[in-house]
Amino acid sequence: MKNNSKVIRNSSFHWEGIERKEYKTGTTNFRDIHRYSLLGEAPDEFELNMHTRYFEIQPGGYSSLEIHRHPHSVVVIRGAGTVILGNDLFPIALHDVIYIAPETIHQFLADRNEFLGFLCVVDRYRDKPVVPDREAILKQCKSEKVLAAIRQ
Amino acid sequence: MKNNSKVIRNSSFHWEGIERKEYKTGTTNFRDIHRYSLLGEAPDEFELNMHTRYFEIQPGGYSSLEIHRHPHSVVVIRGAGTVILGNDLFPIALHDVIYIAPETIHQFLADRNEFLGFLCVVDRYRDKPVVPDREAILKQCKSEKVLAAIRQ
Repeated sequence: MKNNSKVIRNSSFHWEGIERKEYKTGTTNFRDIHRYSLLGEAPDEFELNMHTRYFEIQPGGYSSLEIHRHPHSVVVIRGAGTVILGNDLFPIALHDVIYIAPETIHQFLADRNEFLGFLCVVDRYRDKPVVPDREAILKQCKSEKVLAAIRQ
Repeated sequence: MKNNSKVIRNSSFHWEGIERKEYKTGTTNFRDIHRYSLLGEAPDEFELNMHTRYFEIQPGGYSSLEIHRHPHSVVVIRGAGTVILGNDLFPIALHDVIYIAPETIHQFLADRNEFLGFLCVVDRYRDKPVVPDREAILKQCKSEKVLAAIRQ
C-alpha cells in the first residue's frame, strides 16, 4: 500500500513546504492578507473532499467582502479581529469557531492592532465567491454599525 | 433569508454551548481523551459536508488505534505528542498539520507530559473506524519502534 499520510511541521505560522500565497487574483477588494493551502490541493491528497487553508491578515488588513453558496468552517488560531456575518458583526479571538452559512455576506478584519489568522475549511468542489454590489449588501446589511465596518 | 451563520466563542479550550463528550462508545481501546463537536453536527449546520471536531488528550492518554476509508485533515492547536501513521511515527506539536490518508492505521498519543489537542475534519458521510487486529497491524506496522509505541 502506498501511504500518503504525512505530517507538515509548523514553526511560527510557517509550514514546511507550504508557500505563502497571494490571497486572490482577479479582485482587489482586500488588504494585507495571505493564503496558505495546507491540505487538499496537492495531487496526492485527492481523497480529501475538502480543502484546509490558513489565512493570515496583518494588522489593518481585511479579506474581501464576499458571498457564495458554499459554507465555511473557520477556527481562529492567531490573534484577534472582527467578522462581519450578514447584518451582524462579532469580535473574534483565539480558537473561536465561525460558521459561515451559504449566501451570507462576510468579511474578516484584523482591526485590533493584531494579526488575525484562521483555518478555513471548504468543499473541494464549490462555487466561486461573488463580490456583492451595493444593492446586494443593503439587502443583508442594514445596521449602520455593520455598514460602517465594511471595507471595500 | 434565515442566516444561520454564527460565532462560537472559546475560552481556554472550552467553547460556548459545546459539550465535552465521551471520545467513543462501543470500544475501550483509548485513554483520557475527549471529543468536542464544533461544527457540522447541529441541525442548522446541515449544509456543511464536513464535521469539524476537537479532540483533547490528557497527558498519558491516547486515541484508539484504528483504520478506515475516510481521510482526516488534522491541525494541532494545543500541546504536543506523537502520531503513528502506518509504519511511521512522528512527534507533533503546535500547528503541525497531519494528513491521514485512507486505510492508514493511526493513533495519537499524548506522550510528552502535555495535553495534545487537535482539530480533525472529516466527511459528514463516512465509514466506521475499525480496530485492526494483530495481523492487520503487522501488515502496515513493521518497525519495532512503531510496534512498541502502539497502545491498546
